[in-house]
Amino acid sequence: MADHQKPPPAGDEIERLYGVHTVAEALKNPKRKFIRLLATKNAADRLAAEIAEAGVTPEPALPRELDRLLGPEAVHQGLVLDCKPLRQPRLDQIPRQGVVVLLDQVTDPHNVGAIMRSCAAFGVTALIATARHSPEASGVLLKSASGAYEHVPFSKVTNLARAMEELRGYGFLLLGLDSEAEADIGDARLSRPLALVLGAEGKGLRQLTRQTCDTVARLDMPGEIKSLNVSNAAAIALYALHRSGSSPS
Amino acid sequence: MADHQKPPPAGDEIERLYGVHTVAEALKNPKRKFIRLLATKNAADRLAAEIAEAGVTPEPALPRELDRLLGPEAVHQGLVLDCKPLRQPRLDQIPRQGVVVLLDQVTDPHNVGAIMRSCAAFGVTALIATARHSPEASGVLLKSASGAYEHVPFSKVTNLARAMEELRGYGFLLLGLDSEAEADIGDARLSRPLALVLGAEGKGLRQLTRQTCDTVARLDMPGEIKSLNVSNAAAIALYALHRSGSSPS
Repeated sequence: MADHQKPPPAGDEIERLYGVHTVAEALKNPKRKFIRLLATKNAADRLAAEIAEAGVTPEPALPRELDRLLGPEAVHQGLVLDCKPLRQPRLDQIPRQGVVVLLDQVTDPHNVGAIMRSCAAFGVTALIATARHSPEASGVLLKSASGAYEHVPFSKVTNLARAMEELRGYGFLLLGLDSEAEADIGDARLSRPLALVLGAEGKGLRQLTRQTCDTVARLDMPGEIKSLNVSNAAAIALYALHRSGSSPS
Repeated sequence: MADHQKPPPAGDEIERLYGVHTVAEALKNPKRKFIRLLATKNAADRLAAEIAEAGVTPEPALPRELDRLLGPEAVHQGLVLDCKPLRQPRLDQIPRQGVVVLLDQVTDPHNVGAIMRSCAAFGVTALIATARHSPEASGVLLKSASGAYEHVPFSKVTNLARAMEELRGYGFLLLGLDSEAEADIGDARLSRPLALVLGAEGKGLRQLTRQTCDTVARLDMPGEIKSLNVSNAAAIALYALHRSGSSPS
């Protein structure tokens, strides 16, 4: 089945999804337009209900054909789904409620995917990243998001500080996560809608980003190395916001 | 410098560390016995203070030599440090205080490394994993731990349920994280010393593991997909335990 290796038609943007959870959630998403589904026999059986419901006819594929298509690092679990990209909202189209998350140059697609998953778990309104210095909605990001990409609007902005100002105009309180802040995020009583701003690991918030925040808070850590993986810091912050205030959802 | 590619002397167990944070923390660890440090000129300059303090003479290396040594996936940042493995405590040698974390067949070394990092940040007493179905202290794990491996005792046990019983005998309360539990972990008032038990992503706690727990708690998530990356779940649980009770440290 050498034609699986052909690139998609020129000029046609696609989102390539793989892995059981990622593909299953996409098949259940009524907003998705499917281009093709490649599936091993076992995988097609496993997702038979989702495939039937989506009205897609899978093209049979062998595991090694999918290996070749995706490269050796991708854990595809027998499933590759090519879709039209999801339409993502502009800032002015995002509901002015709950919590949105802004990423200041977080670049690792595994981390952005894991953050997206936490956003889905805590009912975050939207995830916003800078168009530069942040990953595309790549296979790695979508696989790490484990289906969460179907539930969390994901907007790209050219200039983060300007996007923050725009959100402030819509009534969002701008909260930066900053290790130098005085208050723990769990102690802060914060109004909604709220925009949680996260910096890159090690670097933290850029100066202009920090200056643009209305307030900052830290995560209280008693240990010897007070540095977390950025997706872990995001997960804790979302949990703390969920527990301390009105629900983000 | 082809000799960089020679395997270490046969029969000699080593821990191979790479990356700036990982190597810097190891150099600062007085318990470490160093075999050799390979460093690019830039990297040696960057860690000049730590290298001098550790009394190590770096062997000059070129970035592509380190690429060849470690493979293309490893982000070595110009530093490879071979050490004797750290001695790790048996269960009866672990201080009977604070919080220890037990992993029930968590297999991904990135996740275990990130969990170790959160353990360091929240002052966890020890991290305990099953000897089978869990990663070795590999380069990937150590890199993901970003230096935390130097601060968190890491014990392997053959049988998790038996290890839990042993810890109970030392006065530890056994708390399982379980999505089916009634109480949120932030609401539970729990005594110390405490053993937090985490299952593999998707699978959760094995039946015997769950049965062996004294109590279980969940993470309250309001969103549409109530499933987190296991290291994110661990980070939230450690934060919640830190906030709700006496400090784990």
